[in-house]
Amino acid sequence: MTNDWVLKDLLGLERLGAANIEAILDAAASFKKAPSPELLAGRTVAFLFSEASTRTRSSFEAAALRLGAECLSFSAAGSSLAKGETMLDTMLNLQAVGVTHFVVRHERSGVLEDLAPKLDACVINAGDGWHEHPTQALLDLLTLLERWGSFKGRKVVILGDIRHSRVARSNLFALRKLGAKVVFCGPTPLVPDAFAALGVQVVHNVEEALKGADAVNVLRLQLERMEQGFVPSLADYALAYQLTPARAGLMKPEALVLHPGPMNRGVEIASEVADGPRSVILEQVANGVFVRMAALALCDQGRARG
Amino acid sequence: MTNDWVLKDLLGLERLGAANIEAILDAAASFKKAPSPELLAGRTVAFLFSEASTRTRSSFEAAALRLGAECLSFSAAGSSLAKGETMLDTMLNLQAVGVTHFVVRHERSGVLEDLAPKLDACVINAGDGWHEHPTQALLDLLTLLERWGSFKGRKVVILGDIRHSRVARSNLFALRKLGAKVVFCGPTPLVPDAFAALGVQVVHNVEEALKGADAVNVLRLQLERMEQGFVPSLADYALAYQLTPARAGLMKPEALVLHPGPMNRGVEIASEVADGPRSVILEQVANGVFVRMAALALCDQGRARG
Amino acid sequence: MTNDWVLKDLLGLERLGAANIEAILDAAASFKKAPSPELLAGRTVAFLFSEASTRTRSSFEAAALRLGAECLSFSAAGSSLAKGETMLDTMLNLQAVGVTHFVVRHERSGVLEDLAPKLDACVINAGDGWHEHPTQALLDLLTLLERWGSFKGRKVVILGDIRHSRVARSNLFALRKLGAKVVFCGPTPLVPDAFAALGVQVVHNVEEALKGADAVNVLRLQLERMEQGFVPSLADYALAYQLTPARAGLMKPEALVLHPGPMNRGVEIASEVADGPRSVILEQVANGVFVRMAALALCDQGRARG
Repeated sequence: MTNDWVLKDLLGLERLGAANIEAILDAAASFKKAPSPELLAGRTVAFLFSEASTRTRSSFEAAALRLGAECLSFSAAGSSLAKGETMLDTMLNLQAVGVTHFVVRHERSGVLEDLAPKLDACVINAGDGWHEHPTQALLDLLTLLERWGSFKGRKVVILGDIRHSRVARSNLFALRKLGAKVVFCGPTPLVPDAFAALGVQVVHNVEEALKGADAVNVLRLQLERMEQGFVPSLADYALAYQLTPARAGLMKPEALVLHPGPMNRGVEIASEVADGPRSVILEQVANGVFVRMAALALCDQGRARG
Repeated sequence: MTNDWVLKDLLGLERLGAANIEAILDAAASFKKAPSPELLAGRTVAFLFSEASTRTRSSFEAAALRLGAECLSFSAAGSSLAKGETMLDTMLNLQAVGVTHFVVRHERSGVLEDLAPKLDACVINAGDGWHEHPTQALLDLLTLLERWGSFKGRKVVILGDIRHSRVARSNLFALRKLGAKVVFCGPTPLVPDAFAALGVQVVHNVEEALKGADAVNVLRLQLERMEQGFVPSLADYALAYQLTPARAGLMKPEALVLHPGPMNRGVEIASEVADGPRSVILEQVANGVFVRMAALALCDQGRARG
Repeated sequence: MTNDWVLKDLLGLERLGAANIEAILDAAASFKKAPSPELLAGRTVAFLFSEASTRTRSSFEAAALRLGAECLSFSAAGSSLAKGETMLDTMLNLQAVGVTHFVVRHERSGVLEDLAPKLDACVINAGDGWHEHPTQALLDLLTLLERWGSFKGRKVVILGDIRHSRVARSNLFALRKLGAKVVFCGPTPLVPDAFAALGVQVVHNVEEALKGADAVNVLRLQLERMEQGFVPSLADYALAYQLTPARAGLMKPEALVLHPGPMNRGVEIASEVADGPRSVILEQVANGVFVRMAALALCDQGRARG
């Protein structure tokens, strides 16, 4: 890889410049064209996941293996974290064991900002609270970019529980830096009007939001939001905001449907749409591996230069 | 491998022809003679196990590694399955990540029949409810075949909790197709007379069943069967059905003792028998790895042809 | 490796001669100088951990991978152990699957003494109850030896909850065999005077114990010791026994501070000491990988000769 990447960590997209975001997307596209099975030989990846995850963890693991890195089978559940050790001590210890890359999912927002500078190893955020999930946004972007070539003039609707979504935040930051227009849509408790301060258009009516859009990214509705009083019921939510074929038809003819998964079919998205011709949901997943290869490899380059 | 195998999945033995069963046993025997460490290089195996398993999972994992495949460390417990995603979506996602082989254990019978045709990846049943456990039966068969050369005219007793046993069902289907005579033995609640409709002889007296047998496959008695009322007590069961040295002595002199494990020593089998000269229990385990190598490799061949 | 090592197991240091202890330390130092990435190619390591562990398990896994061995992802939680199978049967089964090395952590002291001789595979104790934790002691010794060159005439204080510490026991056995003087220090409930029978000096006053010491190994205070009545409160314990900068200053000027981790900062050790210039805590962790490579490799040599 020949580029200017100098960062050893990927914590979020809010503070990353457009050039760096494009560098990751370029590297991901390169890995998609040509494998590089020895690039990270001798590196060791540790996963610290304090929340369950199928696709993100599997995707990072597949990415690491395709680049020739080793993965430790450590998981936070059976760990020193439970014994009261600080997270920094756990990570320093694993670094002393030889870990070169940490892939971390944590229930608290922003927890990695303080930790990463104290480590020589790379730290990649795989989702922290409601804060950021940068590789998810990057795989969304790669999927759109492959279809569009450029984000200029594109309108992307993010639909659903924006308030509790790190995916929405990371997408917003990256899409705007690359020139797309972003619309947030959902009921007021989940999409407060105050979000307009982030430079986004907030629309509560789903038909209005989707009209003329180039893509919609449908967010998962966590089932516990009902118990927490954010939505009256799943059925009410579905009635008002589910992406049905009729609503999807309000977008441009060639418009795309994304979903970060796991889907609640029949809640935030109708199966006909999820499995329909506009859906790029499984393309997103496939692209996720290449984006994570790029993140692991570029951060490794930043680590070597650091 | 040069054979006619065209299937990408191994879901059960009931619908498999004798030629296909023999193809797996042949391939297993070949792998036992000569390693093939690069045959599945570049393939990725995912394990979806909704029930605990030591030997089956370890055996499949060892088999995959010996053929050069990668194994994802995914387990269903910390997974999207818990978040309400459909099993098909989970598998489609993992397939998009690059998974080429699913090894699945599931508490529901027959769950894979609908799923497998919707996937390009191979699906191998590692035990579904009370339905089938094909690789367990195949390793039993390989172990017997190595000693016998042929199943023609052989009498195999399956002893114990047939009602709840996928191992018994898979064994029955395969043994009959290859020409052996199968006897089911156990108390009526665990071995209903109606099982005779499967083409098997049902015998409730253990001494009568074992007389002149060439082999007995002793099934584990799940300890919860007592609470469920299927047996009056473990001690009663042991008194009436435990494979003791005296009972084992009723079989032919060279007759073999099998057990799929894990054993409840002193319940369904006496330690003297489990560790005695007739026992091929650890041979079964060793053969299991070769049978699973064969299943992974043949299904991969079917996938490539499909 | 050219040495006289003939053992296939590493169960503890109490019965090991000084020559064998030095053989492990020598092999570890060799691995630290020059990698040996194919030495254990074709070997399979299984981890049986009935207690949580981050650093020990990660360290063994990194060690195995660096020597080219495969690691099974088996963990005791989702295992046959829960189904009532004997531990010996579980291990015999895994051995039949191809496991050549067992790394075992168990809550019961001495459980491996009976099991290991019944297996062809290597058995390495990764901590058994309050009994021994040989590789932890060996990594402590390697860290000291790198600084000192020899243990002759050195005074090592082990500070804290000796009663419940397998680390303290293994350290004591090894340090004395190699010529160091060992002092046990802590409150009487945690360091009974009867320990003097082990050939160690027991001192209850921490200032007196540390005076003129060459190193102190600070043990973790398990938080449950308070509930169990061994210490009046964590604050009382910290007041009387925490290794503070002032107390550390009572040792020789170049004296070293060790801790097996995970640390309770502010309880048994002050952060200023843990992170200070005397601390070799992360060196210990790094050396742990080399000691475990030595243990895996030497036992494998013993297995081949056995």
